[in-house]
Amino acid sequence: MAREGRGSNIAVIKYWGKRDKKKILPINSSLSVTLSPFDMGTCTSAAYNPSWKGVKLWLNGKEEDANTERIQNCLREIQARSGESDMKEGIRIVSTNNFPTAAGLASSASGYACLVAALGGLFKVEGDLSVIARQGSGSACRSMYGGFVKWEMGKEEDGSDSIAVQVAPETHWPSLHALILVVSDEKKKVSSTGGMEESVRTSKLLAHRAQAVVPDRMVRMEQAIKDKDFAAFGKLTMEDSNQFHATCLDTWPPIFYLNDTSRAIIQFVHAFNEEMGQICAAYTFDAGPNAVLFVEEANLVKLAHRVSAAFPPSKDKTLEDHLADDELRNKVQEVGGWEADQDMGGRVKYIIHTKVGCGPSALTEDESLIDLSSGLPK
Amino acid sequence: MAREGRGSNIAVIKYWGKRDKKKILPINSSLSVTLSPFDMGTCTSAAYNPSWKGVKLWLNGKEEDANTERIQNCLREIQARSGESDMKEGIRIVSTNNFPTAAGLASSASGYACLVAALGGLFKVEGDLSVIARQGSGSACRSMYGGFVKWEMGKEEDGSDSIAVQVAPETHWPSLHALILVVSDEKKKVSSTGGMEESVRTSKLLAHRAQAVVPDRMVRMEQAIKDKDFAAFGKLTMEDSNQFHATCLDTWPPIFYLNDTSRAIIQFVHAFNEEMGQICAAYTFDAGPNAVLFVEEANLVKLAHRVSAAFPPSKDKTLEDHLADDELRNKVQEVGGWEADQDMGGRVKYIIHTKVGCGPSALTEDESLIDLSSGLPK
Repeated sequence: MAREGRGSNIAVIKYWGKRDKKKILPINSSLSVTLSPFDMGTCTSAAYNPSWKGVKLWLNGKEEDANTERIQNCLREIQARSGESDMKEGIRIVSTNNFPTAAGLASSASGYACLVAALGGLFKVEGDLSVIARQGSGSACRSMYGGFVKWEMGKEEDGSDSIAVQVAPETHWPSLHALILVVSDEKKKVSSTGGMEESVRTSKLLAHRAQAVVPDRMVRMEQAIKDKDFAAFGKLTMEDSNQFHATCLDTWPPIFYLNDTSRAIIQFVHAFNEEMGQICAAYTFDAGPNAVLFVEEANLVKLAHRVSAAFPPSKDKTLEDHLADDELRNKVQEVGGWEADQDMGGRVKYIIHTKVGCGPSALTEDESLIDLSSGLPK
Repeated sequence: MAREGRGSNIAVIKYWGKRDKKKILPINSSLSVTLSPFDMGTCTSAAYNPSWKGVKLWLNGKEEDANTERIQNCLREIQARSGESDMKEGIRIVSTNNFPTAAGLASSASGYACLVAALGGLFKVEGDLSVIARQGSGSACRSMYGGFVKWEMGKEEDGSDSIAVQVAPETHWPSLHALILVVSDEKKKVSSTGGMEESVRTSKLLAHRAQAVVPDRMVRMEQAIKDKDFAAFGKLTMEDSNQFHATCLDTWPPIFYLNDTSRAIIQFVHAFNEEMGQICAAYTFDAGPNAVLFVEEANLVKLAHRVSAAFPPSKDKTLEDHLADDELRNKVQEVGGWEADQDMGGRVKYIIHTKVGCGPSALTEDESLIDLSSGLPK
């Protein structure tokens, strides 16, 4: 038996801080865009065979400990919903990401979303699974749906109303594109779990943000998405990214996810928008230095042209290595007049072009990552 | 006739935001340490001769416009207090800084403090001059006194109670030292005047900081200084520096004063304190990338040794160019085992060693910067 799921998301109203660490309940609601699984995704296969011993997990080709609290949370909840008596035996999970793990591109979110989708498929669990994914990794619950998804913080102590809700499907805003600027794929130094715990404990600004700033932003962001109002969507996205990083800086000891390259990207986007006379591009940064830029189709080639000149490949590399999308790169090269800022050479490692994507989707057994006879990764 | 003043200060509870732009009234109280004028100071001479035409001003050897609103504010207030009928004629002002102008080391604060002290001396104005200095540059009012000085935000609409008050004199805590790490002397891109205006207008966190965070910090900081409790003083200083920069990041568009070197310094200080088992060093950053580190005498040589190894001179320079204080440098060299982090070579341009200093002080006519016969700089 085997099933697969895919997903990945980037928050435009950020989740930072838990009110209940064990149940993973947040101090504020958040909202994200699910990115196309074909560019920024996770593939997970789960298989079950009672003759296999224990639960085993391989992540990106390396065996990892499956006895973590988070994975056990997911297994326990799936078990409770499926009616299976004992899920401590016979389970094999194989997962691969097509983007840098722990570089701040929410791989744990898509990872747990896929895991829960795959386990849910494997054990035929019906209904909303976001409440289970949340217990693996908070933001994973948003990756259980495609398009634009909010995670309602909820009020109940048991977390039963802290679930993901789709605000609009992936087909709602087809002209919305994303460019992901991978600044560094070094492992981040402060994990988001540890970081947000410190922020809740020490930042004097975070509670104010959660209580007094985010509720209004959630309402306005939902409206901007419904209206496909890019200027409003973009401004809120940038303001919220900046405020999230501001609360990190207000944490003791301070947490830094942005570096000088991230800052140069922020200033580049503001300069681009100033030149355009309105907000045509928007940045957002998660718990790492990489940028996700949103842009509408009408301005995509112009932005990609500018970005790849302002943040060009290092001297030993070409634009072919740098901007992976052939079609977009050809259009950028057609524009011409490409003059690289040599000082910034190599500061952005590569640029991924993607769009709004669907949530986890079941794949065929042929695509399984598990060899069903041995229970090992293929 | 000629008089001189000197002064410079670094805030440990930051001033950021005006409730009245014209009168320069702040949204919160602030507190600073006046630094020794011999290391980090401004020298200003003011002379008056009714036969000279107009008001002229030279700053660091270059003639500048004396008809700015801020200088006119100071002249007008001095005039009102002195009873002089017309101060639009016959005044010559010459001012020099011994540190980089506009690099975030509060040169405008010491500049206006000196200007007001010199004019006050010239026209024999008695009593508190901080209320006048405030109208030149807000934080200048704190440089009117030595030692530890608070600027009380005040309640009155006319600003008459928005004045500087000495919390403790320069003799109170003689073991307190400061190392100034000059990261860059490029002109800063966002002036503090413009920056704080944008922050007041756009940051959702700044008003909360001013109303709900700073009042308690002011009380605790004053107590820490009175108790000479370095751990409490240092933690508050660092937390407040971080929160000030957090509100800059929460501004639209975001303001960045810290760069990757500033961040490396912050992380260095946290690592140093962790190793020491308590807070023995504290950083603070104004509107620029330069750091001011506070340390008590017992840990000065150890900190200076570590700092000059972690942030060494560039390859073409020696420690003699880098750490200007001969006595301290000799002690650092005696410690030995000095292994420079080559990756960081030149990221800190030079290190200034200084102490808590006195406020503006009158000097002799011999020391005047003005040639009294011509009214021109000497």
